[in-house]
Amino acid sequence: MPILDYLLGKRLASSEEEGQKIGVWAGVPILGLDGLSSSAYGPEAALSVLLPLGVLGLTYMVPITLIILALLTILYFSYRQTIAAYPTGGGSYTVAKENLGVGAGLLAAAALMLDFILNVAVGISAGIGALVSAIPSLHSYTLTLCLVVLGVITLVNLRGTRESGTVFGLPTYLFVGSLLVALTIGIINMLLHAGHPVPVVAPPALSQGVGAASAWLLMRSFASGCTAMTGVEAVSNGVNAFAQPAVRNAERTLTAIVVILAVLLLGIAFLSHAYGIGAMDQEKAGYQSVISQLVAAVAGRGLFYYITIGSVLVVLSLSANTSYAGFPRLCRLIAQDSYLPHAFASQGRRLVYTVGILFLTLLSGLLLIIFGGITDRLIPLFAVGAFGAFTLSQAGMVMHWRRVGGAKSAPAMLVNAVGATATALALAVILVAKFVDGAWITILLIPLMLLLFIRVKRHYTDVSRQITCSRPFDVSHNEPPLVIVPIKGWDMISERALQFALQLSPDVIAVHVCLGAEDNHALRTEWEEKVEGPIKGTSLPLPRLMIINSPYRQLLKPLLSYIEQLKREYTTRTIAVVVPDLVEAHWYEYLLHNQRAAWLKADLFLHGEQRVVVINVPWYLEEHG
Amino acid sequence: MPILDYLLGKRLASSEEEGQKIGVWAGVPILGLDGLSSSAYGPEAALSVLLPLGVLGLTYMVPITLIILALLTILYFSYRQTIAAYPTGGGSYTVAKENLGVGAGLLAAAALMLDFILNVAVGISAGIGALVSAIPSLHSYTLTLCLVVLGVITLVNLRGTRESGTVFGLPTYLFVGSLLVALTIGIINMLLHAGHPVPVVAPPALSQGVGAASAWLLMRSFASGCTAMTGVEAVSNGVNAFAQPAVRNAERTLTAIVVILAVLLLGIAFLSHAYGIGAMDQEKAGYQSVISQLVAAVAGRGLFYYITIGSVLVVLSLSANTSYAGFPRLCRLIAQDSYLPHAFASQGRRLVYTVGILFLTLLSGLLLIIFGGITDRLIPLFAVGAFGAFTLSQAGMVMHWRRVGGAKSAPAMLVNAVGATATALALAVILVAKFVDGAWITILLIPLMLLLFIRVKRHYTDVSRQITCSRPFDVSHNEPPLVIVPIKGWDMISERALQFALQLSPDVIAVHVCLGAEDNHALRTEWEEKVEGPIKGTSLPLPRLMIINSPYRQLLKPLLSYIEQLKREYTTRTIAVVVPDLVEAHWYEYLLHNQRAAWLKADLFLHGEQRVVVINVPWYLEEHG
Repeated sequence: MPILDYLLGKRLASSEEEGQKIGVWAGVPILGLDGLSSSAYGPEAALSVLLPLGVLGLTYMVPITLIILALLTILYFSYRQTIAAYPTGGGSYTVAKENLGVGAGLLAAAALMLDFILNVAVGISAGIGALVSAIPSLHSYTLTLCLVVLGVITLVNLRGTRESGTVFGLPTYLFVGSLLVALTIGIINMLLHAGHPVPVVAPPALSQGVGAASAWLLMRSFASGCTAMTGVEAVSNGVNAFAQPAVRNAERTLTAIVVILAVLLLGIAFLSHAYGIGAMDQEKAGYQSVISQLVAAVAGRGLFYYITIGSVLVVLSLSANTSYAGFPRLCRLIAQDSYLPHAFASQGRRLVYTVGILFLTLLSGLLLIIFGGITDRLIPLFAVGAFGAFTLSQAGMVMHWRRVGGAKSAPAMLVNAVGATATALALAVILVAKFVDGAWITILLIPLMLLLFIRVKRHYTDVSRQITCSRPFDVSHNEPPLVIVPIKGWDMISERALQFALQLSPDVIAVHVCLGAEDNHALRTEWEEKVEGPIKGTSLPLPRLMIINSPYRQLLKPLLSYIEQLKREYTTRTIAVVVPDLVEAHWYEYLLHNQRAAWLKADLFLHGEQRVVVINVPWYLEEHG
Repeated sequence: MPILDYLLGKRLASSEEEGQKIGVWAGVPILGLDGLSSSAYGPEAALSVLLPLGVLGLTYMVPITLIILALLTILYFSYRQTIAAYPTGGGSYTVAKENLGVGAGLLAAAALMLDFILNVAVGISAGIGALVSAIPSLHSYTLTLCLVVLGVITLVNLRGTRESGTVFGLPTYLFVGSLLVALTIGIINMLLHAGHPVPVVAPPALSQGVGAASAWLLMRSFASGCTAMTGVEAVSNGVNAFAQPAVRNAERTLTAIVVILAVLLLGIAFLSHAYGIGAMDQEKAGYQSVISQLVAAVAGRGLFYYITIGSVLVVLSLSANTSYAGFPRLCRLIAQDSYLPHAFASQGRRLVYTVGILFLTLLSGLLLIIFGGITDRLIPLFAVGAFGAFTLSQAGMVMHWRRVGGAKSAPAMLVNAVGATATALALAVILVAKFVDGAWITILLIPLMLLLFIRVKRHYTDVSRQITCSRPFDVSHNEPPLVIVPIKGWDMISERALQFALQLSPDVIAVHVCLGAEDNHALRTEWEEKVEGPIKGTSLPLPRLMIINSPYRQLLKPLLSYIEQLKREYTTRTIAVVVPDLVEAHWYEYLLHNQRAAWLKADLFLHGEQRVVVINVPWYLEEHG
């Protein structure tokens, strides 16, 4: 199909897989967009919880960020170890499954899958939301714009992994570059003015604050800030997407992502404190994001401001892409273990996991449509999945080192144990802080997904048990079948079907179901003349003609009863039903004929058993000249 | 399926057909609702054209009605003759086809079919429109109510012809009875008060009028009034629905309908003149229909008024039912001549023409949905079809009598000739008067329908030409087929398929398409051990194993190419492809397996030819306990 070639690129051979692998430069945009873009909303989320404290709140921002960075560092080292230990792609699913058992693996997988799906919907709608607040005339097109971005991301991913690295590289590096420039200018100013720089465009003044900092408030601020860490998992899931040396490349990519993210988070925390920038109420007029206030304070509202803010918008919408790198690969791993339909494991024309990509588009598209493109309410559901998977993965690594043993494994085990404890604590904080806001939905959905996995697996096990054949070929069933040929009358179609039937077996019965007041005598005479006559002169077996009356004008029911009767009569023989199929030149021509052949096959399979075989003998109609 | 039994009643045997036939009492509601209900809008349509003339307009109402009645009388006599001449159901289609040629018949059929479809949409929306103007709170449910009525009418008709007579009889006779009572009281009052009765509730005063009566205005009034005559055709279409003596019963039904209709029309014309009742502007507040003004003037707004108006509403919505009696029977006749798909000609479980009924529901439902339940704009399209069919039918009868000849046919021919001329004139008036309002759409649609008829017929002729087999059975093709068995590996499904293949032919080739880096050597060894080994000891033919590599991970394409190659190699033999089909216990389980069997069959038929036969060998999965 040339249209598919044009849209998706030419089909790639399995041997071309190595050419589709990526390096570090492509790895950052493909696997890091989610992590990096979270710097645009993580600090803001933490700050907005601190909003009631006013100016006082800013003093807590740097310590909270430092805790988050400590956690990030622990995560970095433990995922580095995971990449090295599982060079074929060790996501939480694999690590938890291998070390803690299948149940833990599936739990991690379900949590991650939810997060991947949410990330697509939330990322795209956040990006489009920012665009729409910049250009209000686009407001009524919110959903359409979201779906267009979704479509573009899907298409680019279907074209192959390399392709998405090329397409998404430019906005990613533009985003990182311009934000780093802004932060550098800000830090220099801060140092030059002894910690109190003069803003180019002053941010809105903060209130004096109405409350004291309670532990609960700081905990919630931390939990919200943790959203900045989602997406770190992606690299360890995608090790097999990297070119050789895959482990080195993956490790470098992870390092690049984590270092950039840490610099961005720290810079934002310091500068927001120095410039006195707090979160603003999104629902009030004149709302500006923290990044927007910060860049304006540092560099004014010139061209640079618009380039930076523009790249933030693009990167936010494209952060969905990380899910497209992670979700299909995760589904493939689960499908290879038969917990998801096997179709998730087959590589499409461009060597990507097409079913997973399309399924992700379908689910996140549904979320976007249901929420009209405004998915703010989904943000609390977020992060639960990621931290659940983090914890299981780290815990799995602890068991891994214990099993491996040896001198080098003790410190590694310690790193992962600290990581597991830290992320488990963070998860507990997040769960408590966000339970009412929506985290409970995640807790409800995960068991349902586990149930689905188990049912799918049970089905495959069942099928495999039933179809496995360890004994040699059974040569005892070699009696020729009893062949039934339903005919409407004597025509070329019946002749063709009968010819084929006589090639198969000496026992052929032509069955005519008489629907109304037709003249059966005429058919019988024609049969004697045109069929029995010519055959009697040859060595061919003589077929029988059976006429069944159908007082209720049904065609299939009498035929099926007759076949039932034959099944009782001939208890060992295979019964082959030859169904003459009229093949039309155009699809609409099928409307002109009753689809009795298709119905007959469906009915036979519905009521049938192993012994009843359906043979479709096609009769091709020539096209009308 | 018990739910169908409950909804539609138990299946009827063909021999029960006579018991489903109707008499005069059921015939009037089934075939006359359209005609009778038109007395509720025909006079109003005529009067609303006369509206600009004010009081003066009323003086023209009686003469216009008399002309319409004269036309109705002519139609009555000519349709009586048609019924007698075509006792098996002689609608315009049959009469025109037999006497004027197929083209004229199809023209009449297309015109009538359009009218039947329009009648459903217009009738239902008129009834619901009246209901909604009586109970304004229902206004937002207009479309829903229309679709509910459509659904009820469809269901009742699917339950059988007799059933609809029973269900629709009560409102019909209530409508006729109460309207006749109102008219009788009015006429007595008129006579008692020397032509100037005193109204119980005075109708709104008419204006003095602004114009003089032009011939054009009177012509348009006549054309609008003619809508009262649509529906007269129905009886002659449905003669075969009547119990024996069918012709007598049909004639009596026609007489009853026409006499009641004439009395109603005449009564309304006289009384609207006597009471000074004119049409009111539907779009102005306080609108009342002519019938409503008239009944209120005669009998006041008591219980009787509400019963009468209620029955008018019901009968208007049910007038759609006449189409359900006529349309499926008309389609059946056309389908029997192969100008429509044959499915239109088969009797369903309750001996009605199910496909025609459902098709009518579909089309009129679409009209209702497109127009949101308000189909006023469709009214001008109406009547063109009916009068076109009338004219063709009468003209056909003229030719019929000419062909029959004899003494008795001369006066009969005269009646039909007068009828044809009169309806042709009326048609011309209607076309001219309503062309701009929408009659042009009818003129555009009819040729398209004719084109469809011709294409359908051509297809059937083509098929029948290709499949007709006049020569005796060709015994020369008796070489056993070459059997191909695509296998995935060695399992029960492959074994079963191979067993069956070996029952059919000595030439069996098992084909394995190798998608990736599987170990073909293992399969070959297993084949030698488990298949060739056991078979070698028997008289069974030895199957071959063919392994095809597929570098692009496609399954079907390499298989199809191989079959192509075999077709070139063996130019005369039938190639049978045995497709092992996994039959699941639950539909959703099909999602878990790729539907390669179905795709293979579809692809084989798409690229195939007569020589390639598909054999489905089912493998039944047991249900999970």
